[in-house]
Amino acid sequence: MEKIPVLRMGPLLLITIQIDMHDKLALQLQDDVTHRISEYGSTGVLIDISSLEIVDSFIGRMLANIAAMSRVLGADTVVVGMQPAVAITLVELGMSLPGVRTALTVEAGMELLLGAVAEDANGTDHEHRQA
Amino acid sequence: MEKIPVLRMGPLLLITIQIDMHDKLALQLQDDVTHRISEYGSTGVLIDISSLEIVDSFIGRMLANIAAMSRVLGADTVVVGMQPAVAITLVELGMSLPGVRTALTVEAGMELLLGAVAEDANGTDHEHRQA
Repeated sequence: MEKIPVLRMGPLLLITIQIDMHDKLALQLQDDVTHRISEYGSTGVLIDISSLEIVDSFIGRMLANIAAMSRVLGADTVVVGMQPAVAITLVELGMSLPGVRTALTVEAGMELLLGAVAEDANGTDHEHRQA
Repeated sequence: MEKIPVLRMGPLLLITIQIDMHDKLALQLQDDVTHRISEYGSTGVLIDISSLEIVDSFIGRMLANIAAMSRVLGADTVVVGMQPAVAITLVELGMSLPGVRTALTVEAGMELLLGAVAEDANGTDHEHRQA
């Protein structure tokens, strides 16, 4: 039963993490996500961590890795559902999840990702917009 | 970490089951699902079981219970992602998941549920349609 499902929802992929992560499982998840992105042409990845009461440096690094891999494949990543205690611990540990965007709920994350997709389709230049 | 998240996606709820079920967890899930339906006014429940390699009579009964509880609260339930081996075992065991609709993928399940919602909104009479 040790497998984290990667669900396709239109242009997005949804992953809910419920079980204790270990090395092999994390590698398999990275493998699954990258293959699904290239198979489905997904433009966004949603990772729900609302079941996690602890996010240690291992999980933090795994999230950052998935986000970086997805980015080079053309998909944005949003981590959703973080528990308040987890946010406190992360900052206290000095881990700010670099390169990972977050949102409070799956719905907010979907809006963020689908908004980004719509903007890209309109040819908006993100770098100029920030100037 | 023993908690199965119930994610809200518009008018639907999405539940992915990844961990070994036991009595307490099943009761908590039933409790969560029914509360979320009444809180959000959800019209459909999607249960992804693609991670499950075994569906025994306990899980079968739990799925049927959640479907029945959701129905009396006005929400349809669709079980998605069943592995072929699970389907074979279920039928061999004489468990046909009565009252539970199934679909192959989350996307197909969403279409099924949102289609049913749209039909209800149009005032279609299901019983007459079947005659």
